[in-house]
Amino acid sequence: MTDFQQLSPQELQEIKQQLKQRYREFQSKNITLDMTRGKPCAEQLDLAIGLFDCVDGSHYTAQDGSDCRNYGGLDGLAEAKALFSALMQVEVNEIIIGGNSSLNMMHDAFMRAMVNGVTANSSPWKLLPKVKFLCPSPGYDRHFFVCQYLGIEMITIAMKEDGPDMDTVENLVAADDSIKGIWCVPKYSNPTGAVYSDRVVDRLASMKTKADDFIIFWDNAYEVHHLGKKPARLKNILTACKQAGHPDRVLIFGSTSKISFASAGLAMMAGSKASMDRARKQMSFQTIGPDKLNQLRHVRFFKNMAGIEDQMKKHAAILKPKFDAVQSALETELGGKNIATWSQPAGGYFVSLDTLEGCAGPVIRMAAEAGVKLTPAGSTFPYMKDPLNRNIRLAPSFPPLEDIHLAMELVAICIQLVSIDKLLAG
Amino acid sequence: MTDFQQLSPQELQEIKQQLKQRYREFQSKNITLDMTRGKPCAEQLDLAIGLFDCVDGSHYTAQDGSDCRNYGGLDGLAEAKALFSALMQVEVNEIIIGGNSSLNMMHDAFMRAMVNGVTANSSPWKLLPKVKFLCPSPGYDRHFFVCQYLGIEMITIAMKEDGPDMDTVENLVAADDSIKGIWCVPKYSNPTGAVYSDRVVDRLASMKTKADDFIIFWDNAYEVHHLGKKPARLKNILTACKQAGHPDRVLIFGSTSKISFASAGLAMMAGSKASMDRARKQMSFQTIGPDKLNQLRHVRFFKNMAGIEDQMKKHAAILKPKFDAVQSALETELGGKNIATWSQPAGGYFVSLDTLEGCAGPVIRMAAEAGVKLTPAGSTFPYMKDPLNRNIRLAPSFPPLEDIHLAMELVAICIQLVSIDKLLAG
Repeated sequence: MTDFQQLSPQELQEIKQQLKQRYREFQSKNITLDMTRGKPCAEQLDLAIGLFDCVDGSHYTAQDGSDCRNYGGLDGLAEAKALFSALMQVEVNEIIIGGNSSLNMMHDAFMRAMVNGVTANSSPWKLLPKVKFLCPSPGYDRHFFVCQYLGIEMITIAMKEDGPDMDTVENLVAADDSIKGIWCVPKYSNPTGAVYSDRVVDRLASMKTKADDFIIFWDNAYEVHHLGKKPARLKNILTACKQAGHPDRVLIFGSTSKISFASAGLAMMAGSKASMDRARKQMSFQTIGPDKLNQLRHVRFFKNMAGIEDQMKKHAAILKPKFDAVQSALETELGGKNIATWSQPAGGYFVSLDTLEGCAGPVIRMAAEAGVKLTPAGSTFPYMKDPLNRNIRLAPSFPPLEDIHLAMELVAICIQLVSIDKLLAG
Repeated sequence: MTDFQQLSPQELQEIKQQLKQRYREFQSKNITLDMTRGKPCAEQLDLAIGLFDCVDGSHYTAQDGSDCRNYGGLDGLAEAKALFSALMQVEVNEIIIGGNSSLNMMHDAFMRAMVNGVTANSSPWKLLPKVKFLCPSPGYDRHFFVCQYLGIEMITIAMKEDGPDMDTVENLVAADDSIKGIWCVPKYSNPTGAVYSDRVVDRLASMKTKADDFIIFWDNAYEVHHLGKKPARLKNILTACKQAGHPDRVLIFGSTSKISFASAGLAMMAGSKASMDRARKQMSFQTIGPDKLNQLRHVRFFKNMAGIEDQMKKHAAILKPKFDAVQSALETELGGKNIATWSQPAGGYFVSLDTLEGCAGPVIRMAAEAGVKLTPAGSTFPYMKDPLNRNIRLAPSFPPLEDIHLAMELVAICIQLVSIDKLLAG
């Protein structure tokens, strides 16, 4: 492979002509591919098809004998709390099972903080002149949108292989009491695939914060979403927070959106009993309770953690070849050319790719013009602004395997073309 | 029948002794009956048992071909919007179909008003020194809890047979711009069963409000919940608001909680397209979309308005005898005694009973001591404080018919005993 940065303008021009020819061929194929969102494919959804048969006209009663068709049960069905507290690694009184959307539970936790404050003694954020949030980036666009919508100032924190840059985090939170929290996707992070190290978890749990209502939004969306044979281990943040004397510092979120059905899964929130009691009290003014029939379906279908783990192996069997296809296309087309780097995640839903500075936007536009839709440039940073305009989030779960080969080949062609133009302009 | 207020102390004492004997007999029966909440009974839930069969492992696709198991569709499935816009009597772009709880949608609308304001130009309520809400009472306790939780000052408005006392409402809203809205259950109102007259609807739609972001929370929970053969008609508030030049003044809420399943029904919100667009934009930061499978179930089960109306006739066939039992017990035990009045609703879920002043609390306590649980005294008023301590909400839907006879007999005995003591104390 040739390092593009070592080539002469003439050599680059020659390669460019070949690439342009390949690009035009792609355009003539009139393909339409969407790699924008971390959406399960139909084969994955088929894995949970048995959910439909778990509840019917004569099987709708919970273990305690109550009728799951009727009102009641504010924080979830007892057996759902039992099952998913094992997934979240918390006690049964430290979990709330909600509706179909963990984003909704995160959003609602923000809204409660805005209107009522995080703890009994803290100010509602809406009444403060300024609220700031730390946003390890590249990160999840929908997290950032919640902050932007609420007028919370986002501070970008560099994302490393073992989690956020903790030196910067510690310095900032120690000095500024308007910094009220941090967004974290701690395992198989969206989009880089990073897994927070034990050391990072401990530092987050124990660091001194000037704001005494500092809160970690721990979106553990991919706890069991392994791609390989050796699942990564994530240190238990709630235990770490308790040990550090900050039991109420973390709110943990999860869902079965990518375990069962994306539209009709279960969302959950966990944290110290005191945090959950406070949330339960506030929720008692919000709802009479979640859809218990869907909770019953999930408990009966998965039965226990072994059932969930077994399901995730089946997901991995579908997803792994797609992720491998991304790696293989990128390596074949871009390996050794010194114009892009990309993550090799061991789980989760994304591959994060960094181009040369300034190239992400042009690459995404050029791919779109040949029929491949990628997540918009900037999406992985606060305010949709990637300061170096180089990060591209690739979501290989939804398209069929053959489309991924095609799409990634095109993306790699676009990256080379845009990079060559940059080097030539250089 | 004897007017208790015309009897001598001696006559009252004699009646009291007989009543005490009957009360003791009740106590010795060790019954346990719950008439606290408007909860459907199992036979009603059985009416929707076909819902379970409407979606299965090979029937999960929407009319547009999309897979309802997967992400998407922020404001609901197109066919669900089509069906329920007919129920709500609005256009399809004027409705949002949510999760399982209309209370949740109302709460969220309040939270958005607190944090972002009601219109693009209005202040977030949380930043205002004072926000007040009009609360026609007796009314629905969960409405009042939302206001109380958010620190919104509630102003009690007298509830008449055709809706709230509009003279008072008009005077208040014209004078005070901190009055930001009003709670309404316009049809078969909780608990009085009142149906708002056309005149009241028009006055609400057209009245001058000092607050330009005044908003009507129109909880039309019982639109199709008729008990008799002649359904009441409710004037369309959205049309009235548009005609009066205030298209964005109303948010309409409804649900199938008491049409299909209480725990697993569908909730909906409706209003002008501009209001809904604003809500949709805010919701796009909150969720990726509702449980579309449950929406699909409902559309396939009910098919159209005729299907819903047919279902409601079956509900009425179960509920009517229970409501009749309440009326008959009250009439038999209390008729002509001049110590209580009660509503005779043509629909909805409640009977509202007024005792002599100061008697509601003691009656509810006395009934509880003999095993019949009633909604706590004061529940139907803001801050749980019934100024005359006389209103009792009766919820006859859940207990079996024979229990209702028993429960109402006991309640009537308690009312007589407490009233006699009051009359004797003079």
